[in-house]
Amino acid sequence: MSTRQEHDLLGTREVPADAYYGLHTLRAAENFRVSRHQVHPELIKALATVKEAAARANLDLGYLPREKGEAIIAACQEVARGELAGQFFLDAFQGGAGTSTNMNVNEVIANRALEILGLPRGDYTTIHPNDHVNLHQSTNDVYPTAMRIAAIRLLLPLAEELARLQEALQEKEAAFAGILKIGRTEFQDAVPVTLGQEFGAYAQAVARDRWRLYKVEERLRQVNLGGTATGTGLNAPLKYIYLVNDYLRRLTGLGLARAENMIDGTQNMDVFVEVSGLMKAAAVTMHKIAGDLRFLSAGPRGGPAEINLPPRQAGSSIMPGKVNPVIPEMVNQVAMQVMANDMVIAMAASQGHLELNAFAPLIAHALLESLEMLAAAARIFRTECISGITANAGRCREVLEQSPVLVTALLPYLGYEKATEVVLEAEASDRSIREILLEKGFLTQDELESILTPAAMTKPGTLKPVNRRQQDPEARN
Amino acid sequence: MSTRQEHDLLGTREVPADAYYGLHTLRAAENFRVSRHQVHPELIKALATVKEAAARANLDLGYLPREKGEAIIAACQEVARGELAGQFFLDAFQGGAGTSTNMNVNEVIANRALEILGLPRGDYTTIHPNDHVNLHQSTNDVYPTAMRIAAIRLLLPLAEELARLQEALQEKEAAFAGILKIGRTEFQDAVPVTLGQEFGAYAQAVARDRWRLYKVEERLRQVNLGGTATGTGLNAPLKYIYLVNDYLRRLTGLGLARAENMIDGTQNMDVFVEVSGLMKAAAVTMHKIAGDLRFLSAGPRGGPAEINLPPRQAGSSIMPGKVNPVIPEMVNQVAMQVMANDMVIAMAASQGHLELNAFAPLIAHALLESLEMLAAAARIFRTECISGITANAGRCREVLEQSPVLVTALLPYLGYEKATEVVLEAEASDRSIREILLEKGFLTQDELESILTPAAMTKPGTLKPVNRRQQDPEARN
Amino acid sequence: MSTRQEHDLLGTREVPADAYYGLHTLRAAENFRVSRHQVHPELIKALATVKEAAARANLDLGYLPREKGEAIIAACQEVARGELAGQFFLDAFQGGAGTSTNMNVNEVIANRALEILGLPRGDYTTIHPNDHVNLHQSTNDVYPTAMRIAAIRLLLPLAEELARLQEALQEKEAAFAGILKIGRTEFQDAVPVTLGQEFGAYAQAVARDRWRLYKVEERLRQVNLGGTATGTGLNAPLKYIYLVNDYLRRLTGLGLARAENMIDGTQNMDVFVEVSGLMKAAAVTMHKIAGDLRFLSAGPRGGPAEINLPPRQAGSSIMPGKVNPVIPEMVNQVAMQVMANDMVIAMAASQGHLELNAFAPLIAHALLESLEMLAAAARIFRTECISGITANAGRCREVLEQSPVLVTALLPYLGYEKATEVVLEAEASDRSIREILLEKGFLTQDELESILTPAAMTKPGTLKPVNRRQQDPEARN
Amino acid sequence: MSTRQEHDLLGTREVPADAYYGLHTLRAAENFRVSRHQVHPELIKALATVKEAAARANLDLGYLPREKGEAIIAACQEVARGELAGQFFLDAFQGGAGTSTNMNVNEVIANRALEILGLPRGDYTTIHPNDHVNLHQSTNDVYPTAMRIAAIRLLLPLAEELARLQEALQEKEAAFAGILKIGRTEFQDAVPVTLGQEFGAYAQAVARDRWRLYKVEERLRQVNLGGTATGTGLNAPLKYIYLVNDYLRRLTGLGLARAENMIDGTQNMDVFVEVSGLMKAAAVTMHKIAGDLRFLSAGPRGGPAEINLPPRQAGSSIMPGKVNPVIPEMVNQVAMQVMANDMVIAMAASQGHLELNAFAPLIAHALLESLEMLAAAARIFRTECISGITANAGRCREVLEQSPVLVTALLPYLGYEKATEVVLEAEASDRSIREILLEKGFLTQDELESILTPAAMTKPGTLKPVNRRQQDPEARN
Repeated sequence: MSTRQEHDLLGTREVPADAYYGLHTLRAAENFRVSRHQVHPELIKALATVKEAAARANLDLGYLPREKGEAIIAACQEVARGELAGQFFLDAFQGGAGTSTNMNVNEVIANRALEILGLPRGDYTTIHPNDHVNLHQSTNDVYPTAMRIAAIRLLLPLAEELARLQEALQEKEAAFAGILKIGRTEFQDAVPVTLGQEFGAYAQAVARDRWRLYKVEERLRQVNLGGTATGTGLNAPLKYIYLVNDYLRRLTGLGLARAENMIDGTQNMDVFVEVSGLMKAAAVTMHKIAGDLRFLSAGPRGGPAEINLPPRQAGSSIMPGKVNPVIPEMVNQVAMQVMANDMVIAMAASQGHLELNAFAPLIAHALLESLEMLAAAARIFRTECISGITANAGRCREVLEQSPVLVTALLPYLGYEKATEVVLEAEASDRSIREILLEKGFLTQDELESILTPAAMTKPGTLKPVNRRQQDPEARN
Repeated sequence: MSTRQEHDLLGTREVPADAYYGLHTLRAAENFRVSRHQVHPELIKALATVKEAAARANLDLGYLPREKGEAIIAACQEVARGELAGQFFLDAFQGGAGTSTNMNVNEVIANRALEILGLPRGDYTTIHPNDHVNLHQSTNDVYPTAMRIAAIRLLLPLAEELARLQEALQEKEAAFAGILKIGRTEFQDAVPVTLGQEFGAYAQAVARDRWRLYKVEERLRQVNLGGTATGTGLNAPLKYIYLVNDYLRRLTGLGLARAENMIDGTQNMDVFVEVSGLMKAAAVTMHKIAGDLRFLSAGPRGGPAEINLPPRQAGSSIMPGKVNPVIPEMVNQVAMQVMANDMVIAMAASQGHLELNAFAPLIAHALLESLEMLAAAARIFRTECISGITANAGRCREVLEQSPVLVTALLPYLGYEKATEVVLEAEASDRSIREILLEKGFLTQDELESILTPAAMTKPGTLKPVNRRQQDPEARN
Repeated sequence: MSTRQEHDLLGTREVPADAYYGLHTLRAAENFRVSRHQVHPELIKALATVKEAAARANLDLGYLPREKGEAIIAACQEVARGELAGQFFLDAFQGGAGTSTNMNVNEVIANRALEILGLPRGDYTTIHPNDHVNLHQSTNDVYPTAMRIAAIRLLLPLAEELARLQEALQEKEAAFAGILKIGRTEFQDAVPVTLGQEFGAYAQAVARDRWRLYKVEERLRQVNLGGTATGTGLNAPLKYIYLVNDYLRRLTGLGLARAENMIDGTQNMDVFVEVSGLMKAAAVTMHKIAGDLRFLSAGPRGGPAEINLPPRQAGSSIMPGKVNPVIPEMVNQVAMQVMANDMVIAMAASQGHLELNAFAPLIAHALLESLEMLAAAARIFRTECISGITANAGRCREVLEQSPVLVTALLPYLGYEKATEVVLEAEASDRSIREILLEKGFLTQDELESILTPAAMTKPGTLKPVNRRQQDPEARN
Repeated sequence: MSTRQEHDLLGTREVPADAYYGLHTLRAAENFRVSRHQVHPELIKALATVKEAAARANLDLGYLPREKGEAIIAACQEVARGELAGQFFLDAFQGGAGTSTNMNVNEVIANRALEILGLPRGDYTTIHPNDHVNLHQSTNDVYPTAMRIAAIRLLLPLAEELARLQEALQEKEAAFAGILKIGRTEFQDAVPVTLGQEFGAYAQAVARDRWRLYKVEERLRQVNLGGTATGTGLNAPLKYIYLVNDYLRRLTGLGLARAENMIDGTQNMDVFVEVSGLMKAAAVTMHKIAGDLRFLSAGPRGGPAEINLPPRQAGSSIMPGKVNPVIPEMVNQVAMQVMANDMVIAMAASQGHLELNAFAPLIAHALLESLEMLAAAARIFRTECISGITANAGRCREVLEQSPVLVTALLPYLGYEKATEVVLEAEASDRSIREILLEKGFLTQDELESILTPAAMTKPGTLKPVNRRQQDPEARN
């Protein structure tokens, strides 16, 4: 293999001649061969855009000559589009607070810019990864800035997917509005609800999740670009600091603004903890819904079987005809991973020290993974499961009618103790609540009919006003 | 011991005659003798206020006769003030989704109301825990409502404590503004910062935490009171539903409002996950600050010793004169507990089923504990530690001057590779950076003086414009 | 209030005259008023026993005069029996690596010993908390030693409770051995099992948990007593080091031994992570069982209702006759707390520094809480739930017979594709599997009878050997 | 693209003609396009070995004809060697309890076996993924079995890496045995230790971790192979059950044995929680060591700088000559991920239901990732960091001598209060402890010399016996 020589403070090494990456990347690749996870491509793209903003500012201010500056900008744009992706293979679990990823990007851009200028790779006296591509920058300002950009870029699709999930749930809310069924609290038969109401409650929770994630995006817009090594802006000219942030805002279209306190922006990771915490709330909601759907579709004989999930694949290698709730199960697992990622983000963020958090790469890895996975899970949940759910209305009604839960609706007329007595007697004698009530003369047939209607039982405030007890509240004493 | 008899669906039991609590409480006490944690008193108080609102609404609407209603209201007010606290001893780790706590409150209020009326305890035909005190209510609407009230009541002091912590940090920011010191990234000497800047970054992070918690309070204001068992409002008259929420808003002064979708409000716990997630962000910030303070005060000889924490107690049972950073260590431990509580809240919230989350007691326990502990930790952190911190300005300066980090400030004038060479030579020969630079003729004495001023090194954009390289950007190529 | 004066390196303060605790305790009480949790009493008792061992060794070796030594020993024994418990009120979330708790014990023992000698409290020139009670000790050796003793003392009852839980489950395994029912995988009807087999699987898992916890106890027996401040044994005479460990072993009867490497034993907390990790495995098992029992008892109409949990209390404040699975729900919540405690233990253990882990108090708090709670939960789970479970054999059989799962038993005779076809046709036409099979002539009535027996379907290797396909394996191709 | 048709219970689809995978895999690929993580290759290999064992048993017993059986066996062996890896691309976050991965393996083996026989892919009447490759198996027995095999295969290298890490630490223990330095508790200067002792404590903790992981391997050896769908062994001939386990033991060489209770083995995942919990203990140890090394190497001026880590790469894109502790930082991040994975494993394991845990794929993913990553981290930690550490003996000594910690060694001669007084006076007057002691006549020069030797201060029981106070213990009263 043909090689070129590069050197750094540790010495000289051979780098593959056709590699756009350079010696720093090579050493980092050797140092961190530890996981199966690579740096997230959105982070690479975001870094390249930051580099472009810097190059444009440096060019405008005369810190980069035109030809070199333009070559660097062109190279940045390629990387920001996802080209040369094969050059970015560093392990996500890297020490160095992101320096290796930043240098990987610097090296690839430098060598690609050299190539654009018709010069050989490694000609760093002409275009140097540090002195030109990284000019007026430090890993410690570009990396957190790129984390924010990448996070926003994945956050917006997640919020959109949650909006679509909400809509799909609302469609089912409407479709199932008339299906009366037993409500369950603590897995025990409780009072009647409609199947539509259940999907309505899911939709409402997802709506909150979506709103939270939509709102939190603005917290990510404060960047510390220009702060260099510790946020003090050492080595960065004042005009550059303003200009690079202008360019970044324009290039990304994301409403980014330079943080007032760049020192804070360099060292504190709480905003990622915040975003992750809200994502976890969404994961919790999805976990709950997926669990409910698995329960409600349990069967066909041994469970409620109130709904049917659309079959997605044969469920068993041994049980013919078995279809499993594989999509909700996938959602559950993604949700649990998002919960665990939230923990790792908090741990890493809490253990930063002084002017920097050395664990930013772990935070970036876990955060971007969660954002991407949760959006994908929401999408698949909707398209492959929720949208295709059908109801077993007959089964729903049948179970409800067999159930003693109807007695709760009679509480205002009987009081708690008498009602308890009726239930116990019904269970003991295996007779219906209605039978006992009529036999004991607690209520008439007409009264029962007017009280036990679906509407009366599933909408607030539909208590029948005409009633002995209602007319004389003292009767309840 | 004198007793009275009470009965329920499981049979008859003796209850201590002078107990305000009743049979349900007794059974629950026996069932859940599992931890050393009792139900949080703020939850009891909040439940009592909910009960008062219900009693007032029921009284106005004629569902409760005046005398009984007023006795119940009086009893509610006593409990809401924290009286009869000894009657509320149930274990925080209780099954039943909060029913036992609700019944405990119902029983105590019923018996105290009976007492106010001059009647014997246990005379439930006159005032019944369920039929009168719990009238038109279910655990499933009053308990989540009370959780929100209690959470808000603990959240506001937390936000205030964070505001005060922020102020205390800002005072140190001002006091230490002139103390130049070495900045550290990844524990390695980096570029100069001021001690004030470090405290300023802490203050900024705390400001964000405070703001988040202040803002999230409004999410807690949507209550499901009136929804009864599953949020459908079964058994609750429409006028009652409106009125009870009016009363609750007035009694609490917290801007509460009935949730549009009470079914959602009954079953979904994501809002507590959200609050906890933001608290965790605050815990992460405090963990980070506490860790930094322990590092910066490490010594007196074996660590940086840049600051002195106020001594709070003798540090060792064997090492005379030793003083330890006990307050930051306490803060670290509280922060870790808040992080773990966040995990337990998420787990519990994600495993709710259908119309209810049976694990609401665990969520309430962990959430209220975190809110209270974090506020206390913030207060103690401020009063017993932050406010008393003093700086070792001499030590700060001394270390900075010995350090090769100054070379970073020369990067715009030397370029990355030449600067690296200077550092390596300085280290190898144990000479100062200045010496090498002058010897090699890279910079003149005057240039050095003008570049290496404190202001130049710790404020953005203070790069000296008059410079060979600066005048001719091409020279950097 | 009458007071006495005490002083330390921070100055002089008034202490209540009748307090056995002293100035260090007073300061710590003020510094750490942060949570509702006190130091666990088992830790106090264990510390007192360590103090007794030290006093005996010091007495034997002449470092303590007889009269003083004996008074100290007597005081240690009182505290070790749980007396004077009111003197130990320090917050569990304390900084200082346990020094405050150690000093609390030192002070109480010193003052109680003075009292035994007829001397006034605070007469520390006669008996000094540090110079006499803490003689040849440091918090850093006595505290980790006491943590181990307390952990063992709570671990053994936990292992016993798990053994009893296992037995209770095995009793149900035997009682329900003949109850054939549908097995469920992924909540979907799968192949037949017996109810007894389900309880047998629970018992087996609990048996493993018990065994793990039983075995891990020996890891806790290595103590660093004698290591003093950092494990080097500074200030402790060699004879004392041997003797104190002899006494400790005798006094506790726990088979304790001095660690070879006391420096390791002083700083590393991994053994508590190990114990907690194994407890978490037990919590996971209990969480799974509790979840299953809640599912299997769900109903009475809307769920499987295959088993009945013994009713423990009225389930609802509004729904008469409702009984909830409150005991399993409590178990679930305890299990989740144990899982969260495990996380906090790992976080705290991982963030120790150098010669000591400052977060030992948090580790002790979480570990001892988990040990105690999990044992209590296991006990209550057994006595209040498992032991009283009854089966609904009729319901079990009825559901099984309606189910198409029987077809799986025919797979060896039909092959996967033909079997799938039969199931789909049965579902589409709402006819039974048997009907379709006979109609299509796939199997005869006799063949069906011999294949579909309970024994054949729930025991391994009971495949009928006499069969067309069995005789000619090629037929399956 | 050329295709072939396959069908299942959901209908007919085109599959790429040259694909070894089939329709089930295709559907699963579409259903679970959710993460960037594929099923771990060790799991695929292990499944192939299980399939080989089954094929051999079925062949011996006449359930598979020779030619087909041998083709299947040959195909299994290829997959078990890692060949055809490109056919196994399913997402690690898959629903279905592993069925998709099992079917992926079944399909690839079937088609590869067909190819070996010279037949076209998709000719499932000849060799069927279910009827032949999966014969007498269910996902629910082969998948947990394969999880155990894969876990053991990754556990053993991890234990070995920990053994090597321990050795590397012990080498440093020996090399640094003579370097006296300050010990630190709670970051504050404490009593003297040697640098060797610090590495010895690390080695000891790693030794425990290694031992735990080495021992736990045997818990993984109990497999439920033969249990089929729920562990009852339905459809599996008795002779097959014995034989397949014999073959599996022989093929793997891992000492596997069939579990007594296969129902338990099918549904319970506690053994993976156990393994993960012990791994977490190792991660905690490594996190602690890595943190210490970062602290001890902090500097060069602003931290202790007692040791030098071997430089592995340029540390900064802006600060020339800066070298960061990138390897320990990587180790910290891996350790935190292992801790989070442990949480996700516990959550997933605790939420299994009845006869199966649907989240086995998540458990497998997190467990195998942790095993592999922790082994790699241990290896890199050793080779790229620990082995190259050097000590700054001069710096160590210098700091120790300036420190007042020496006074602790005088405690037996002065008592706690007098010693405290000396320290405070030394600090106030900026004089040395020695000076004060001599001036006050507390000790003579000779006494000081004999007490304050390195050996005396860092080894237990080296208290000087000849001493005024020692001769007359009463003098200490």
